[in-house]
Amino acid sequence: MKRQVSVTIFGASGYTGAGLYGLCLRHPGVNVAALSADRHAGERLSAVFPRMAGLTDRVMVSVEEAVEQANEVAFLCLPHEAAMAVVPRLLDKGCRVFDLSADFRMDTPDSYAAWYKVQHTAPELLGVKVYGLPEFHRERIREARLIAVPGCYPTSVQIGLAPLLKHRLIDPRTIIVDAKSGVSGAGRKLSQRTHYVETNENIAPYNVGRSHRHVGEIEQELSKFAGEAVRVVFSPHLTPMNQGILSTMYVDLTQPLGTSELLDLFRSEYAGELFVRVLPHLPETAFVQNTNYADVSVHVVPDTGRAIVLCAIDNLVKGAYGQALQCMNIACGFDEECGLPV
Amino acid sequence: MKRQVSVTIFGASGYTGAGLYGLCLRHPGVNVAALSADRHAGERLSAVFPRMAGLTDRVMVSVEEAVEQANEVAFLCLPHEAAMAVVPRLLDKGCRVFDLSADFRMDTPDSYAAWYKVQHTAPELLGVKVYGLPEFHRERIREARLIAVPGCYPTSVQIGLAPLLKHRLIDPRTIIVDAKSGVSGAGRKLSQRTHYVETNENIAPYNVGRSHRHVGEIEQELSKFAGEAVRVVFSPHLTPMNQGILSTMYVDLTQPLGTSELLDLFRSEYAGELFVRVLPHLPETAFVQNTNYADVSVHVVPDTGRAIVLCAIDNLVKGAYGQALQCMNIACGFDEECGLPV
Amino acid sequence: MKRQVSVTIFGASGYTGAGLYGLCLRHPGVNVAALSADRHAGERLSAVFPRMAGLTDRVMVSVEEAVEQANEVAFLCLPHEAAMAVVPRLLDKGCRVFDLSADFRMDTPDSYAAWYKVQHTAPELLGVKVYGLPEFHRERIREARLIAVPGCYPTSVQIGLAPLLKHRLIDPRTIIVDAKSGVSGAGRKLSQRTHYVETNENIAPYNVGRSHRHVGEIEQELSKFAGEAVRVVFSPHLTPMNQGILSTMYVDLTQPLGTSELLDLFRSEYAGELFVRVLPHLPETAFVQNTNYADVSVHVVPDTGRAIVLCAIDNLVKGAYGQALQCMNIACGFDEECGLPV
Amino acid sequence: MKRQVSVTIFGASGYTGAGLYGLCLRHPGVNVAALSADRHAGERLSAVFPRMAGLTDRVMVSVEEAVEQANEVAFLCLPHEAAMAVVPRLLDKGCRVFDLSADFRMDTPDSYAAWYKVQHTAPELLGVKVYGLPEFHRERIREARLIAVPGCYPTSVQIGLAPLLKHRLIDPRTIIVDAKSGVSGAGRKLSQRTHYVETNENIAPYNVGRSHRHVGEIEQELSKFAGEAVRVVFSPHLTPMNQGILSTMYVDLTQPLGTSELLDLFRSEYAGELFVRVLPHLPETAFVQNTNYADVSVHVVPDTGRAIVLCAIDNLVKGAYGQALQCMNIACGFDEECGLPV
Repeated sequence: MKRQVSVTIFGASGYTGAGLYGLCLRHPGVNVAALSADRHAGERLSAVFPRMAGLTDRVMVSVEEAVEQANEVAFLCLPHEAAMAVVPRLLDKGCRVFDLSADFRMDTPDSYAAWYKVQHTAPELLGVKVYGLPEFHRERIREARLIAVPGCYPTSVQIGLAPLLKHRLIDPRTIIVDAKSGVSGAGRKLSQRTHYVETNENIAPYNVGRSHRHVGEIEQELSKFAGEAVRVVFSPHLTPMNQGILSTMYVDLTQPLGTSELLDLFRSEYAGELFVRVLPHLPETAFVQNTNYADVSVHVVPDTGRAIVLCAIDNLVKGAYGQALQCMNIACGFDEECGLPV
Repeated sequence: MKRQVSVTIFGASGYTGAGLYGLCLRHPGVNVAALSADRHAGERLSAVFPRMAGLTDRVMVSVEEAVEQANEVAFLCLPHEAAMAVVPRLLDKGCRVFDLSADFRMDTPDSYAAWYKVQHTAPELLGVKVYGLPEFHRERIREARLIAVPGCYPTSVQIGLAPLLKHRLIDPRTIIVDAKSGVSGAGRKLSQRTHYVETNENIAPYNVGRSHRHVGEIEQELSKFAGEAVRVVFSPHLTPMNQGILSTMYVDLTQPLGTSELLDLFRSEYAGELFVRVLPHLPETAFVQNTNYADVSVHVVPDTGRAIVLCAIDNLVKGAYGQALQCMNIACGFDEECGLPV
Repeated sequence: MKRQVSVTIFGASGYTGAGLYGLCLRHPGVNVAALSADRHAGERLSAVFPRMAGLTDRVMVSVEEAVEQANEVAFLCLPHEAAMAVVPRLLDKGCRVFDLSADFRMDTPDSYAAWYKVQHTAPELLGVKVYGLPEFHRERIREARLIAVPGCYPTSVQIGLAPLLKHRLIDPRTIIVDAKSGVSGAGRKLSQRTHYVETNENIAPYNVGRSHRHVGEIEQELSKFAGEAVRVVFSPHLTPMNQGILSTMYVDLTQPLGTSELLDLFRSEYAGELFVRVLPHLPETAFVQNTNYADVSVHVVPDTGRAIVLCAIDNLVKGAYGQALQCMNIACGFDEECGLPV
Repeated sequence: MKRQVSVTIFGASGYTGAGLYGLCLRHPGVNVAALSADRHAGERLSAVFPRMAGLTDRVMVSVEEAVEQANEVAFLCLPHEAAMAVVPRLLDKGCRVFDLSADFRMDTPDSYAAWYKVQHTAPELLGVKVYGLPEFHRERIREARLIAVPGCYPTSVQIGLAPLLKHRLIDPRTIIVDAKSGVSGAGRKLSQRTHYVETNENIAPYNVGRSHRHVGEIEQELSKFAGEAVRVVFSPHLTPMNQGILSTMYVDLTQPLGTSELLDLFRSEYAGELFVRVLPHLPETAFVQNTNYADVSVHVVPDTGRAIVLCAIDNLVKGAYGQALQCMNIACGFDEECGLPV
């Protein structure tokens, strides 16, 4: 068991990076070497996030400086493209890299280019990375040098559908995911879409169908569980709250099954998982807010051959920095729940 | 053209009844004879809704008194069961009745009993009533004595799906409706579910599958458009806002069609409809808040044989009192948009 | 009585300009000649505000073009500095100008420069303008060519304090105003402060003391009621809602008076005022949302020699475009409430 | 240093009791003996609060049972009157009692009767209790058997004003407190006032002046700092958010002082205090949400002889259960911050 790791966080001035740093401050086995925030280099983190006053006097540095100081573990809370620019250098320095951007989630340069409309600059690493969803890849995370931490929507969808796909209980070609997200998922960058007045008192669908970038990641990963190509219709909705995702998923059952059988299957699949709660009742985002839990349930719709799977997570915690820390705990030999909010 | 109608509103102390009265105050052809509110009989409406101070000094009366005073038009903003107790008496008095409760929406006593778990006490009226969705039943509303004004969810679903069902463009057995509602849909009655702290910052699914009472009404009416039995999976979600419903509907196309073809179909079907806006972009609830509009759009999902239909309304206006007034305008010979908010 | 006026709105792509245009569409005596929106010139207003789809196809023009087209009435919903650049030209063309910016509210170039940190470019007009608070300046508005429509905070404060100051019932040097505003008061321009995630679930004071620009306008106008220099301590707070201002005002009474005496005074001062409601209970912002009402109340605090005055308005309506239209109604000979929401 | 204490929580089905239990679960030195919830006796806590599923299977018991099981430390999260009914019995059993109700905050039976309109049933304990505001009463808390944990409003006010009163820097007779509270302060009990639709998008003042029950507690405690009778005007406002209180306080300075001098005074008074952050900028409730911090700042208003003091806390944490646990940590010899969220 490793006692102390030295951690560098890139992109500390965003919601994800700052939240991760907050967890690191309470983690008994973590020392933070550096925080980067190019636009805010030279400023205290607590100047950007006054809620952290008193907790830390840490001054953020440039990405360059952070690369230099990184020496053991690096978390990348950078936008895509920015992440792949530094990952190879960090790996070369011997760091273990936990990338929260989208840059290493896809398995091939082509699929990356198809969904992100940009050429990958470190394509050789796509096949090397381990996908950082601990409930399904725990053993490989233990040894990985580069962990691609999943996006918020894909996390909720995989936790909801993996048990059914693995057991071939649903049609992999007719999956529908209707997702509702809090606004922090859009980050701290300003946009008309996330301007208070236009988001408050509003439910706004966006990128419905197959146009949201997470569709590529979702289908890639679900296909592995299914053992065949999965296709999803995915409709994200922006909802007037800060944190939380609820994915309501509609699936066609391949055989007649009841709600209790399916709940039993989920309980069995997630037995021993600390952060997955299989519920007999319907999940709500408030139940998981500020926690690393994924709450999941399944309900067969009588006379339709269909089931509804619901999964709620906090998009910033289990959907981002909590999951990243969970991966780090596994990779570095800490208790998996160490420092994680429940 | 009728010049003045005398209107009685039953259930004026709820959001729907009070909102309707607010519209009546501005309607040039309406005189309000009485407002009922059993629990608040003897009180001023403005004591219950201080926002109406200065607009009205009207004192509410008991249901009994209101029945006596009703002489031409009666709006029933009562809970189900309460409505059917007074409707026959109002009809006997020669009133035209616009019932906003669920009591006369179902076509048979059996279906009413099945969905509402109570025996209907005026079953002979179920076949007489006209279903008050003007976009589809305008001519019959003109002559009707008893209009059953649709529920909020069914309104949004029918406006979204009727064009497709009428033209046999979708499979009537595989429809999925994922609906998101503001909290006013649950009324003014207190419940833990609508307690501020438990609804704020939360997305809460409820009654998913085929258990919500509106499923019966939705399937009954959609079946008429389809000419065959329609089955829906329906998942309502409570969302942290006051007013608004967005229904996101997933349908299987029976033939290859593109988004623009379907939008054209919708435009053609709703040509001349004052309160339906067919949008090329995605509807959002904020765009229809406090208006009688239904915003609708449709998007074919490439490579899936599916389309997504979205319909946004204000649950209290087009989903309740606005639509009721629209029906009254038609029935009493006013301009259809008279007094309606846009 | 004038039948039709031709109106040009400058700055139609902001919340105030668009809201004003919405009212104009329903006003029986208004034709809109042009809408300006420099950044969005050439676009439809409904492209910026999808809620207006179906209501209008109007394309916005540049400020230059709008100046050319303006021929009778001009509303300026521009930022300060931008307004004073066009006002003289509009007046030269013979337009009556209703300026919703801060540019003509101050009475002297010095006070303007002191509070807005910029030299006034049309100082000769400062003494000519009429301050557009109809409840106190109705007669002068009737004849004015240039009306400086008050800011949202100053409107609520003057309606709350004018009766007391006019009757010398409070100490003009010890007034405290604690104001709570919805986010739309900060406009549609993006800022970290109005980013959804940072405003939601937060109460944020800003510019407390005597640093907010509205302090100059408040003291200038209150001093006229008092007949001597008034000084206020003013603390605005940003609150998580879209629309509404509540000003809670603390005053030292100069003589022993009771709550009912003061309420009577308010009732007498505002007798006949359509848009001021004197309430025996406490005003709340929800009661005036989307209306042109100012709700006001006063409560003497026993054993302290103090009273609390509360005034609630909708910052966008009575605090901006509703009041502007009210001024126009007066100036152009319409019924004062014509086209105004209640 | 004590290693383990046995804790019983009365009233676990409310927001305060459940939150306290959540902290106890993570506290290394606490064993929970029993949870009471009369109305929910026999139910699991996680059935009432699904967010606690997986964290605890604890079944709640009746108050009677809990009294029997209590053997070392008892927290009372009961309404007033209910608390004083059991406190004497718990003390007789040798328990140390931390009462979060209002029952033991007042110093005399008369003042209790005056503010709570009920006779105290254990008046002999009023003089024995220690007031549980650790920043001012730490040493007495260490030895106390009965700790009356302060209310949420009084905590924010005392932290804001104590330094000024102790040093005689402000007039104790002219203090104004304008407070803004989140809705959880009103508890989990249903009321029209806390119904979602009526609280959302609304700022609602209530009990302004000297009528709120916390006025008695505030004046009693502030008077001790001042060494003379303090009088406050206190205006609470309900605001649309779940958690948080901001008190904006207006004081008359007794001598000319600048902002930086006063900030220095606050820094010196709170030096070493873990949970008080003296800020040069303005506190906001979001900065303290879900933490035990009190953020405080002070700003002198030029040319007025006045200062504005602002204090933000989370009403449920530093304003209730966090502070109670802080008291327990002190009383039982744990590190003061043990188990407390920051």
